[in-house]
Amino acid sequence: MRMFQQIGPLRTYLRGIREEGKTVGFIPTMGALHEGHLTLIRRAKSDCDLIVVSIFVNPTQFGPNEDFDAYPRRLMQDQQLTSGEGVDALFTPGVEEMYPAGYQTLVEVPELGKTLEGAVRPHHFRGVATVVTKLLNIVQPDRAYFGQKDYQQFLIIERLARDLNLSTDIAMIPTVRDPDGLALSSRNAYLSPEERSAAPVLIRALKQAEEMLVHGETNLATVRKAVEALLATEPLVVPEYVAFVHPDTLEPVNTLKNGLTLVALAARLGNTRLIDNALIAPPGVSPIRNRLGKL
Amino acid sequence: MRMFQQIGPLRTYLRGIREEGKTVGFIPTMGALHEGHLTLIRRAKSDCDLIVVSIFVNPTQFGPNEDFDAYPRRLMQDQQLTSGEGVDALFTPGVEEMYPAGYQTLVEVPELGKTLEGAVRPHHFRGVATVVTKLLNIVQPDRAYFGQKDYQQFLIIERLARDLNLSTDIAMIPTVRDPDGLALSSRNAYLSPEERSAAPVLIRALKQAEEMLVHGETNLATVRKAVEALLATEPLVVPEYVAFVHPDTLEPVNTLKNGLTLVALAARLGNTRLIDNALIAPPGVSPIRNRLGKL
Repeated sequence: MRMFQQIGPLRTYLRGIREEGKTVGFIPTMGALHEGHLTLIRRAKSDCDLIVVSIFVNPTQFGPNEDFDAYPRRLMQDQQLTSGEGVDALFTPGVEEMYPAGYQTLVEVPELGKTLEGAVRPHHFRGVATVVTKLLNIVQPDRAYFGQKDYQQFLIIERLARDLNLSTDIAMIPTVRDPDGLALSSRNAYLSPEERSAAPVLIRALKQAEEMLVHGETNLATVRKAVEALLATEPLVVPEYVAFVHPDTLEPVNTLKNGLTLVALAARLGNTRLIDNALIAPPGVSPIRNRLGKL
Repeated sequence: MRMFQQIGPLRTYLRGIREEGKTVGFIPTMGALHEGHLTLIRRAKSDCDLIVVSIFVNPTQFGPNEDFDAYPRRLMQDQQLTSGEGVDALFTPGVEEMYPAGYQTLVEVPELGKTLEGAVRPHHFRGVATVVTKLLNIVQPDRAYFGQKDYQQFLIIERLARDLNLSTDIAMIPTVRDPDGLALSSRNAYLSPEERSAAPVLIRALKQAEEMLVHGETNLATVRKAVEALLATEPLVVPEYVAFVHPDTLEPVNTLKNGLTLVALAARLGNTRLIDNALIAPPGVSPIRNRLGKL
């Protein structure tokens, strides 16, 4: 596996790869890799000739009171994991490489970015959109892979790639979960043993919503009440939002129509924020599993 | 000359060109082409194997009370001019091709975009930055060419290309002028004969500033007074701003130090806004003529 900390040498390497006619798959990450990231890598390997992973804990997507400093950094372990998966190139730029003196350009996806996580974390998605635009321009992959756990992030990146005429297909892969259903996240490492035991109530709440909706309940106020009641059974879990939204626009929906509904949750467990979501289909409609464009 | 109105076929054509190892020069315009644009095209032809010109009157860079509807559109004449200059591909997308339903992404260069024209025309440079990012991603040129008349626009595009890791060199070419010194602009067509006669006071004002500065005047307040007095001799010309700024940061300067100073002017003549500028060097320093990176 080749290691790059600087943009110039990575570009030169990738130019050679493209001249050989090889396709490039890209997985941008903040490191502290877990089975969710490895699933993205494996999927990329089945689609593309050459795999690039980036690890960059992007300061501009953290708020002033968020966990930028505490965010887990495990480069040695990540290097072993990516190398073990057969990743071809690992890009680990420093902050000065990505944001040198004089840097000022911002990319924003205002409508998709203002709701759900964007309402709670101002400027978060501006930071995400900007860094991902940069990474996609540096790597110029044929396809980039994102996990469904960060569904809103996927939607924003899919939108900016289309809007800014990037030639990368933005792919979404279903969330990977622990055996008890907790969605994998680098932030799960922050949980105390008690919080970790309480956390699967999030997936139980999503399954409760799915259960009611696929059995014909159309009144989302009723479903919301049941979800909130279930979450309330775990006093360590403090819900931030429970949202029923259109999976393309993220606009609130009030009744389940013939399309999919995204149920999105955010909650605090002590100092840790966790999010999760489910795409729920009404009877007879099958929920999307992978979301992939043309390669 | 090949004509393209859609992004897909243009991309396919350019992919073939790049596979042949040819370099691509790009001149994005709003049409109503004049000798200034043709000078950019000729320069591009001397640098690059293949020349692409775009014509797109971009609605998002016009304010609600500006001249979007009135902006001159002369596609037949522009087609003849570009074909006559040996342009290889002319890209003339419609508004729906550039901003299809659901479009929402914005690119902003906040510091460079807030002063001078940005202070008078809110959101103008956000529109420029967004459409140029799109065009550069579509064409992926080796070098793109801009005129010095729109110096601030050049600086913003140079900044965003670097910040977003585009691999295009952003080049600036000196302003082309009528024999009486008026900077060429598609908007000069709006001027009445009387306004056209009055307009060269702008270049005389810039030359007055240059004269004083190269002869050792260091107090910019004195220079500004002389410039304003000269502009006041033409009652049809209503100055909007006279600015002395650092040519990289656009921050105001108060005394001429050992670097270059940008003197930038904006004025109204009836309903028409004109801008012009000069890069002025103190004694012993030569002003930049062309600004070109590595090709």
